[in-house]
Amino acid sequence: MTVDNSVNGTAQSDILNAPFLKTLISQIRGQDSYGFYRSWSDELILKPFVVTKQKKREISLEGEVDPATQARIMVFFRAIAASIEKETNLISQVVVDLNHEGFGWVLVFSGRLLLVKRTLRDAHRFGFDSLEKLAEEGENLVAKGLELAKTFPEASKL
Amino acid sequence: MTVDNSVNGTAQSDILNAPFLKTLISQIRGQDSYGFYRSWSDELILKPFVVTKQKKREISLEGEVDPATQARIMVFFRAIAASIEKETNLISQVVVDLNHEGFGWVLVFSGRLLLVKRTLRDAHRFGFDSLEKLAEEGENLVAKGLELAKTFPEASKL
Repeated sequence: MTVDNSVNGTAQSDILNAPFLKTLISQIRGQDSYGFYRSWSDELILKPFVVTKQKKREISLEGEVDPATQARIMVFFRAIAASIEKETNLISQVVVDLNHEGFGWVLVFSGRLLLVKRTLRDAHRFGFDSLEKLAEEGENLVAKGLELAKTFPEASKL
Repeated sequence: MTVDNSVNGTAQSDILNAPFLKTLISQIRGQDSYGFYRSWSDELILKPFVVTKQKKREISLEGEVDPATQARIMVFFRAIAASIEKETNLISQVVVDLNHEGFGWVLVFSGRLLLVKRTLRDAHRFGFDSLEKLAEEGENLVAKGLELAKTFPEASKL
């Protein structure tokens, strides 16, 4: 982390070592074809994933979900898929299907097995209370997916 | 079939008794809250599902997929879900995720099991050569889904 891009000092740098956040960051940097984030710290890159309750209330639910928010939803679930892939060598797909009201499905699947199956509501307000919460929720979804892949190996390889 | 709405005489009425087409028609009539199709014959209702190769070439791939076509894709896969539900008592969900180029995924799932997993291309041109082909493709997808539900009953009930 460079001092220039520091957001809140270095207090949060421990959480940035959480395996899920590392995967999330590498997904974002991996898609950064134009080097837009090259000079950004990890913390700064993850900052938009933190949306406090107060801030959520301020985000209007009118109109389409902001493309930047849609991209964040996608990369969050791609990071979950990538974390599961790393452990299992399964190849997985992420499908995000949101309607105009920000309601819809997120599905991560491998073979015929759904590793993640989520409905989203108010996707306009997608975000987490803190980086800790982001890491926690990510890890939980990864753990659940890994458990399913272990329980149904044949279905996941079809 | 009433004479008024006959499309090609009665030559095709046999195929209209195919179980999949019966389910498809009952799905369409079941969603017909305003009675729009009440006076239509089954054959007339299914006519838009038949798109010949010639006609496909005439459908432009520019712009969004026509909402009527999107609705037809949805009801086709809902009919597959309904046919599987009838046999297995599983409750299933249909997710159709199309991008602006008419490319995307169709997923039908029950519990954690994907009963149908399809990529669509050129969804603007969704359709079948004939009612026979429509019935055949529907039955095939239903059969495949039933086989999966039988092979992975635990995953389908999660």
